[in-house]
Amino acid sequence: MTDAADIGTALEALRARRPLVQNITNYVAMTLSANVLLALGASPAMVHAIEEVEDFVAISDALVINIGTLSPPWVEAMRRAVLAANEAGKPWVLDPVGCGATPYRTATAAELASFRPAVVRGNASEIMSLAGATGEKPKGVDSAAASDAALEAARGLAQRTGAVVAVTGVTDYAVDGTSAVRVDGGHALMPLSTALGCALSATVAAFAAVTDPMTAAVAALAAFDVAGAEAAERCRGPGHLPAELCDALHQMDAASLRRRARIGVA
Amino acid sequence: MTDAADIGTALEALRARRPLVQNITNYVAMTLSANVLLALGASPAMVHAIEEVEDFVAISDALVINIGTLSPPWVEAMRRAVLAANEAGKPWVLDPVGCGATPYRTATAAELASFRPAVVRGNASEIMSLAGATGEKPKGVDSAAASDAALEAARGLAQRTGAVVAVTGVTDYAVDGTSAVRVDGGHALMPLSTALGCALSATVAAFAAVTDPMTAAVAALAAFDVAGAEAAERCRGPGHLPAELCDALHQMDAASLRRRARIGVA
Amino acid sequence: MTDAADIGTALEALRARRPLVQNITNYVAMTLSANVLLALGASPAMVHAIEEVEDFVAISDALVINIGTLSPPWVEAMRRAVLAANEAGKPWVLDPVGCGATPYRTATAAELASFRPAVVRGNASEIMSLAGATGEKPKGVDSAAASDAALEAARGLAQRTGAVVAVTGVTDYAVDGTSAVRVDGGHALMPLSTALGCALSATVAAFAAVTDPMTAAVAALAAFDVAGAEAAERCRGPGHLPAELCDALHQMDAASLRRRARIGVA
Repeated sequence: MTDAADIGTALEALRARRPLVQNITNYVAMTLSANVLLALGASPAMVHAIEEVEDFVAISDALVINIGTLSPPWVEAMRRAVLAANEAGKPWVLDPVGCGATPYRTATAAELASFRPAVVRGNASEIMSLAGATGEKPKGVDSAAASDAALEAARGLAQRTGAVVAVTGVTDYAVDGTSAVRVDGGHALMPLSTALGCALSATVAAFAAVTDPMTAAVAALAAFDVAGAEAAERCRGPGHLPAELCDALHQMDAASLRRRARIGVA
Repeated sequence: MTDAADIGTALEALRARRPLVQNITNYVAMTLSANVLLALGASPAMVHAIEEVEDFVAISDALVINIGTLSPPWVEAMRRAVLAANEAGKPWVLDPVGCGATPYRTATAAELASFRPAVVRGNASEIMSLAGATGEKPKGVDSAAASDAALEAARGLAQRTGAVVAVTGVTDYAVDGTSAVRVDGGHALMPLSTALGCALSATVAAFAAVTDPMTAAVAALAAFDVAGAEAAERCRGPGHLPAELCDALHQMDAASLRRRARIGVA
Repeated sequence: MTDAADIGTALEALRARRPLVQNITNYVAMTLSANVLLALGASPAMVHAIEEVEDFVAISDALVINIGTLSPPWVEAMRRAVLAANEAGKPWVLDPVGCGATPYRTATAAELASFRPAVVRGNASEIMSLAGATGEKPKGVDSAAASDAALEAARGLAQRTGAVVAVTGVTDYAVDGTSAVRVDGGHALMPLSTALGCALSATVAAFAAVTDPMTAAVAALAAFDVAGAEAAERCRGPGHLPAELCDALHQMDAASLRRRARIGVA
């Protein structure tokens, strides 16, 4: 099982390689995603025009696709980017924001999930909805659902898509077809600051450039759980949390991540 | 007249209901609007694709339409969303950013204003321009106009559209066809941080999900005046104001809002 | 040669005039660009719809064109805006973000550069790539290139386009066809916070509204070097840098800028 030693090694590899991460993401999350990637030690780029998306995949190390503010031209760019990434053997991460909220969103997420993402990262409601849309009988679409309620759906989704599925909540999980890892940590203020989940998905992509999908998912979950808790301790409310999170990721090293990560069997 | 007791009750209702507020807003304001709504106790969503905008209205509690970075596909999405909101009896708020600056902007704002918004929120220049475009003889379009210069225009606009009109400036006003409320507070640093007005309009929408339009407008104005003043006291410049504003809104409760709100007859 | 006295005078002129700066810029940089312009004493607007872009140029004092998240409708708006600015004799600044990364990006930057920008502002890699695309034999396209490696390319680009070319890095340069100025300062944390370069380009445009292109470029470079260094001293990581930069720009006056600017012959 992926353990603390592995994710420390992954962080060292990320810092050494400084992977170029292409983001096709939503308007709300762009700035924070870029800042989180820079703070962590990766190099972000936001490139989504159909005219250049495949050319940019060719020079990137990993790709994150986030449907938060989707529209048809962006969805077409997402399709082209993931096909180019697959052809080039580059890992890509799917963040199915709001899957289940509208038919358009659910259908887009399900289509993208069929294109072999390395990792899918969502909250319980999104993962359950996406699992349902790709064949699993949905257990419900409750945005307040706890992450463990989505564990079975995540397992089915992982088996059908071949992706590692990361479900975030009070406890986070990373699931593939045969195993499941739990990661604890974080802070109750985190859901009160927008786009942290989106920035986490971008972080998964950065790690996926330097290690296998399961290790990448666990490393990103642990890094956010550790840095988020440290950041929240410096805050009296959610306002400064994004800035503090960036500082905490910037100051994190492999030793501190290994020491503070709370990883276990799900 | 709406008083401090009413707006405290509105804040309690907002916290209890956690309304889902759909935002079709400008690129500059999206992240701050989401963070302000989260800090206050509402649930934000940024959804603007024509393919899903009506489906999302169906699950939302209120809608804000902000034309700050408008373009034809977005304007079409705005039309569909407000018609869906009206049909479903859900309140929506119009923020006519930059009305008067270009003919396209003025015409779009005027068209949207004709679709029965619950509240229109703008600065003096925008409200005077919009009043002119909907039939009032304009008194001038001066971006430096004081909010009280727009009071008469606001009254005419309210009478023609049926909306409560909120005009913000050093003093804020909320006006309907028959009465006018003034709200004092805020801080001189606030106009030096972008998109606070846009986030205020989103806050009006959150309150409109749980109370009548006049109480919603006054509650949002008072909440921003109180939280903005508290936030600015913690700042040496405008840089940290958005984060501090979120913290102040997060820590605000009905008692502190009632005690510190400065509401009077206009 | 432009000296500290000149840039102090330029800052005073900017504060007195409060120029309206139109931004057609990327999604990542919009909010920070607006906040930097407000903190400095200018008035920002983000306006990019083809339906209004020329009308807005007519009321603006300067324009910045940034291709960071370009797509065909935006590029068409950029063309119309720069032609309108040229016709009206208003200065405009080009930020060729990512020039060299994809053919689409390079071709768009080269086309725009042919429309007589007052200033082009980029990093070494972008400037070398743009110089190559407009006729210079490229010396290489290395995103890690130091700014002095781009000095010759900048000179050629300046001669061909008539623009002042500003190259930023550890040392910054402003180059026209005959002279070159170096500006030192800044801080190693600055490249770890996204969109500071984009906000700098917007700042060049604000200064270009009140002074000649060379003085505008040097003033903006010096203001960012001084404010960035001051901001970074207040930070333990990159997270709060944007907010601290705004505070430092807000508190800067002509005397402090003159005293702290490090300007010399390149």
